[in-house]
Amino acid sequence: MYIVLMYDINTKRVGKVHKIIKQYLNWIQNSVFEGSITEKKFNELKRKLKIIIKENEDSIIYFETLTKKNLTFDITGIEKNKYEKFL
Amino acid sequence: MYIVLMYDINTKRVGKVHKIIKQYLNWIQNSVFEGSITEKKFNELKRKLKIIIKENEDSIIYFETLTKKNLTFDITGIEKNKYEKFL
Repeated sequence: MYIVLMYDINTKRVGKVHKIIKQYLNWIQNSVFEGSITEKKFNELKRKLKIIIKENEDSIIYFETLTKKNLTFDITGIEKNKYEKFL
Repeated sequence: MYIVLMYDINTKRVGKVHKIIKQYLNWIQNSVFEGSITEKKFNELKRKLKIIIKENEDSIIYFETLTKKNLTFDITGIEKNKYEKFL
C-alpha cells in the first residue's frame, strides 16, 4: 500500500513523532511524509504513534491507496526535502 | 479529480495563500487541504498560487487522483477542522 501522512502535533511531542515516522516513510515537507509500506509495518507505525500522541490535542491524518500509481505528485516551488528516490 | 494539497509557505504570504485555497478546497489540518475539483478550477487555483508564492522559498505539494474512491482517509487524534461533509 502507499501512504501519505500529515501530522499536527504539540511541540512537546513532535520531535519524537517525527523520528519514529522517518523510520517508516519519506519526509517530503513540513509535517508531511509519504511512502510505500506493508500493511504489517503500517499497523506497527500507527500503534507506536498512538502510544505517544495525546488524542485530544494532536492529529495525524493518513491517506491510504493501494498503489502509488493511483496518485500523481506535483510540486510548485522548492522541494523542502530534495531526494531522488521519491520524485 | 480529487486533490490533497499541502503547503509550506513563508509567514509573510501564508495568510493570502490560505484564503485563496479555501475558495477551492476543504481545510483539514495545519497546512493541508483536500477536495474534489474540476481540472479547469484546479488549473485556475495553481495559476493564482504561482503568482503569490516565491518559488525559491515556498513549497506547495499536490497529490492528485481521479476519484476520492482511490483513497482511504483515516485520522488518529482530534479532527483539527471538524466538518461532516468531508468524513
